[in-house]
Amino acid sequence: MISFTCDYCEGAHPLILEALQRTNMVQEQGYGADSFCASAKAKIRAAIGCPDAEIFFLVGGTQTNSTVISAMLRGPEGVLAAQTGHIAVHEAGAVEFTGHKVLTLPQHEGKMRADELADWLERFHADGSWDHMVYPGMAYISFPTEYGTIYSKAELEQIYAVCKAHGMPLFVDGARLGYGLASPAADLTLKDLATLCDVFYIGGTKVGALCGEAVVFPRGNVPPHFFTTVKQHGALLAKGRLLGVQFDTLFSDDLYLQISRHAIEMAMRVKALFADRLFIDSPTNQQFPILTASEVAALKDKVLFEIWETLPDGRFVTRFATSWATTPEQVDYLASLLPRRK
Amino acid sequence: MISFTCDYCEGAHPLILEALQRTNMVQEQGYGADSFCASAKAKIRAAIGCPDAEIFFLVGGTQTNSTVISAMLRGPEGVLAAQTGHIAVHEAGAVEFTGHKVLTLPQHEGKMRADELADWLERFHADGSWDHMVYPGMAYISFPTEYGTIYSKAELEQIYAVCKAHGMPLFVDGARLGYGLASPAADLTLKDLATLCDVFYIGGTKVGALCGEAVVFPRGNVPPHFFTTVKQHGALLAKGRLLGVQFDTLFSDDLYLQISRHAIEMAMRVKALFADRLFIDSPTNQQFPILTASEVAALKDKVLFEIWETLPDGRFVTRFATSWATTPEQVDYLASLLPRRK
Amino acid sequence: MISFTCDYCEGAHPLILEALQRTNMVQEQGYGADSFCASAKAKIRAAIGCPDAEIFFLVGGTQTNSTVISAMLRGPEGVLAAQTGHIAVHEAGAVEFTGHKVLTLPQHEGKMRADELADWLERFHADGSWDHMVYPGMAYISFPTEYGTIYSKAELEQIYAVCKAHGMPLFVDGARLGYGLASPAADLTLKDLATLCDVFYIGGTKVGALCGEAVVFPRGNVPPHFFTTVKQHGALLAKGRLLGVQFDTLFSDDLYLQISRHAIEMAMRVKALFADRLFIDSPTNQQFPILTASEVAALKDKVLFEIWETLPDGRFVTRFATSWATTPEQVDYLASLLPRRK
Amino acid sequence: MISFTCDYCEGAHPLILEALQRTNMVQEQGYGADSFCASAKAKIRAAIGCPDAEIFFLVGGTQTNSTVISAMLRGPEGVLAAQTGHIAVHEAGAVEFTGHKVLTLPQHEGKMRADELADWLERFHADGSWDHMVYPGMAYISFPTEYGTIYSKAELEQIYAVCKAHGMPLFVDGARLGYGLASPAADLTLKDLATLCDVFYIGGTKVGALCGEAVVFPRGNVPPHFFTTVKQHGALLAKGRLLGVQFDTLFSDDLYLQISRHAIEMAMRVKALFADRLFIDSPTNQQFPILTASEVAALKDKVLFEIWETLPDGRFVTRFATSWATTPEQVDYLASLLPRRK
Repeated sequence: MISFTCDYCEGAHPLILEALQRTNMVQEQGYGADSFCASAKAKIRAAIGCPDAEIFFLVGGTQTNSTVISAMLRGPEGVLAAQTGHIAVHEAGAVEFTGHKVLTLPQHEGKMRADELADWLERFHADGSWDHMVYPGMAYISFPTEYGTIYSKAELEQIYAVCKAHGMPLFVDGARLGYGLASPAADLTLKDLATLCDVFYIGGTKVGALCGEAVVFPRGNVPPHFFTTVKQHGALLAKGRLLGVQFDTLFSDDLYLQISRHAIEMAMRVKALFADRLFIDSPTNQQFPILTASEVAALKDKVLFEIWETLPDGRFVTRFATSWATTPEQVDYLASLLPRRK
Repeated sequence: MISFTCDYCEGAHPLILEALQRTNMVQEQGYGADSFCASAKAKIRAAIGCPDAEIFFLVGGTQTNSTVISAMLRGPEGVLAAQTGHIAVHEAGAVEFTGHKVLTLPQHEGKMRADELADWLERFHADGSWDHMVYPGMAYISFPTEYGTIYSKAELEQIYAVCKAHGMPLFVDGARLGYGLASPAADLTLKDLATLCDVFYIGGTKVGALCGEAVVFPRGNVPPHFFTTVKQHGALLAKGRLLGVQFDTLFSDDLYLQISRHAIEMAMRVKALFADRLFIDSPTNQQFPILTASEVAALKDKVLFEIWETLPDGRFVTRFATSWATTPEQVDYLASLLPRRK
Repeated sequence: MISFTCDYCEGAHPLILEALQRTNMVQEQGYGADSFCASAKAKIRAAIGCPDAEIFFLVGGTQTNSTVISAMLRGPEGVLAAQTGHIAVHEAGAVEFTGHKVLTLPQHEGKMRADELADWLERFHADGSWDHMVYPGMAYISFPTEYGTIYSKAELEQIYAVCKAHGMPLFVDGARLGYGLASPAADLTLKDLATLCDVFYIGGTKVGALCGEAVVFPRGNVPPHFFTTVKQHGALLAKGRLLGVQFDTLFSDDLYLQISRHAIEMAMRVKALFADRLFIDSPTNQQFPILTASEVAALKDKVLFEIWETLPDGRFVTRFATSWATTPEQVDYLASLLPRRK
Repeated sequence: MISFTCDYCEGAHPLILEALQRTNMVQEQGYGADSFCASAKAKIRAAIGCPDAEIFFLVGGTQTNSTVISAMLRGPEGVLAAQTGHIAVHEAGAVEFTGHKVLTLPQHEGKMRADELADWLERFHADGSWDHMVYPGMAYISFPTEYGTIYSKAELEQIYAVCKAHGMPLFVDGARLGYGLASPAADLTLKDLATLCDVFYIGGTKVGALCGEAVVFPRGNVPPHFFTTVKQHGALLAKGRLLGVQFDTLFSDDLYLQISRHAIEMAMRVKALFADRLFIDSPTNQQFPILTASEVAALKDKVLFEIWETLPDGRFVTRFATSWATTPEQVDYLASLLPRRK
């Protein structure tokens, strides 16, 4: 059965498997000190326009979020996120496990708003008992968000300005970064992003790799002992080459953005199929059609997708995700399952 | 340059890469709910003779140790380990990061002794202020140890008996489990091991996989919420298939033990080369020759190996590791570098 | 200047100081093994009607909350609280520091509602990705709440029924327990409370003691190693007698409730002064008048009180707290400062 | 029965109780913002000769150690201590609970040696895999030690020099500080101490107070958010006045050192009683006589003391502690119980 459940249903992009095969018996140092990691880092530094960036390859998204966040916070500091932020909901309390609270702000189609962030911070500092409360130590946003939306360059600039005004680093969770940057709705580039935050990661797992996320500190602002922190969090791969080879491939010949663009093309075709019933106007690879119970029933034995939430009227918000691996034939098949509309 | 630095210098066993290639575009559920994980678990259950075993695939060793240990301990409990145990030395305090202390016992060629464990526990409970101290909540041993040595079946039975007498679970770190079981010196099997502890893991990273460790609770004794704990520790792979495919391959046609046996053959040849200068009589894939400074100097531009420690007389304990990937030609080359002895 | 800022402005009830004086040079064991703690526990067991209750004396409220909560939760479990719950807002992330998330529910005048708790739990278990989320491991309510309100017996029964239906312990934060039980609006007794939760504490700091909170596990359901957990959290007083003597005094001759009743009498007089401008109808020792900026300005140089929050119309919610130490003369003075109303 | 079990058998010095009585009904701000804390801090700043010192009053020793240590360490840093250090043995893993490892050095009559510390640090940095290990982030010593011994000024200077050479702060646990400084064997003053470490605490609980430890950052080097960290650790007393009044009393008219000197006088008389059978030559208030089983049996129904450890020959190392509260009559009585020696 064809699946639109998620963007991690398949293995890796064929060029990645080919590279793993080709390099398999080369003997290398462990723990990321291999030549593939070095090459991948050089390519990423070029792609983001930050020659001094420090880059670390970790394995998965939740791991990356909790490792980066706990490395950047001190003592009673917490991290500010939209209430729908991945760290606030779907990471099993991984940030809290490291001793830090996730402080939440309202979400607007999955996004945090700069003015609400500024208000929150003002109210916090105006509160007479602020020093009995968790201190806002950094801000977290996802790009794209958990609802597929993306921040405009102006929105990101405003958020970053608020952060800088409060001496608070900004972290961008880029688990699906490629799908955000490759969207026609995006008005910022990877190079722009690198100037608009203090740390971000380039998601591999959901964009063509078997696993792997590249954490980037663009301006040499890596926290002390970060390599050892990665080890301490169980996030240091012995065969770091597995990550190096994959990112080296993804950042050769613009592969990362090229396969992301393909996913967006497929997503726009899926979006068109549900144009009259979208929960959110998502410009990226996740689409959220609203389906009735009978529509869900009609589809569910033929194609896989996720039930995201139930609306008060009993209809379902569903999620159909595309990826680098989605084929036009799969989308055609989905189209064939849907009743013609006049 | 040929490397004997470690057992994770190469990628994966060719059959694993082949399987990854073959299954790459099959769409599967994420987070370990895929058919490859299911198949791998069934094969492991058969191999260990525990039809009710619960099995979880994690990514790396430090991660596995800290996840399992923190899931099994409560509050002020700590874990007992030999002072050379990996968790006590080389994991950047990953166990302490989860809030639990590593309590150490003397080591004997890397091993804990049952009588010393029993003594420690007796003294602990006899201490008038024991309830102001970290409580011994579980015991940890590695098989093979960090010095390549292995426990005999009798030794393991004795340790486990002490643990059971104190109601304390026993955890066996099997990062190099294959190399232990495949040693001619081993008098216990995988099935035996499963009856002689409460939880163990079958190391993949060092025995043919790109990454991956299979945690086994042999008798359905998995701690509450363990799946979510794995997620919370950042140890849950989105593409769990990567681990499923690998362990499915390793546990088909006895591959895991077969490639382990090969590594041991290579190791015994290396051992023979240094027979008159071994720091420890290791029966597994890690050999620890004692070399003088000039011997090190003579070798170090031709072959890679590790300096393990420096002896008081200035000589070096070195480590030469073999693996599933070591070739007879590599060992021949090493032999050719060593001066003939009469 | 007279202060209505809080209920911990003075030292201790005179009878407590007298008892400290009287017992001062008696030599006792440390860490709570003294005769005063034993006597206090016996009196509390009688007062709550639970002969098997296990009782521990800790020093302060935040400490007690984080110690009890972390002792009762395992791994990725979190604690459910109203969003205005003290642990969710004013404890500097002390619960998160122990690795556990505070999950929040809507508040209604500071209270959690049983039906909303039940709904939350149903939705949680219905969510397809619940095992990627923090598991609801216990519920926390405060009695009285942070807004001075109290749960009726029926409300508490309903909440506890929901908790029991989900196998989830209920913890009652009784930092101001006396002021709740002594309120004429209360329809439950200390003995009732002990049957309607799994653990609670009897607040001393705010009800006549210099410091101290008595944690009660009414039915012998104390978590393993709890004494050592208290030590590990830095919550074990060397001179436990300081707590024993105080609670022994508070639970002699009904002192605890008697002084609480006095505080409520004073509070009702304060409430009457502001009857036409109350933010909340609080039946306990905290009253929340709404004052205009000019009213605040007129009062603030003559009497101390807290600004609780600012309303959208610019007026202030203020807090005036009474305690065992508040005198009728202090309330008269406050009355004299307020303009006569017709 | 007279007790020499510990130095926290009685309540508080009479002058402290008197001050608590005198100030009891004065209304003050909570959380250490009261006038008594301000006065106590001023007196301590004068006594240590550090006008810019930042001072915080916490409640107990274990709490203070874990709060200070976790506030000063980052990520995978640990704290170096002698293996008999209180934090390494008798605090129920309170430091590990905050995520940090206690790294241990050999002890010499309870003391760490500067040369061994330097060696340890050199070996650490020379180790090729140091970045897979817990980083030495600070050093901890106790003054006096758990065996009653004290560092000479020269020894402390050497240790501090090693720390500074490695950019590592030094923390002095002064739970019994008065008894160290008041010893005739001490060649350093409180003012000296303040120049020879980065943070220390002045123990109140064991030196005349009901509870309380004064943490001193002598040169304004307080970690960020330290007040909130204290709150987060449950170490912030609502009625901070309880600590303020006590330290204000202890630092008036040299009371702290005066009562410490008395304890030392009593201790020297106890020491003389056991002069021929001391386990350690302690110059402070803890004495460690070696007693045979029959000697223990003869004494134990008449006087209380602690069994510290059992020697291989079956004799017992015992501990007899004096304090500010020990009377000459109590020592006379102990003397009367011991057989005359020729």
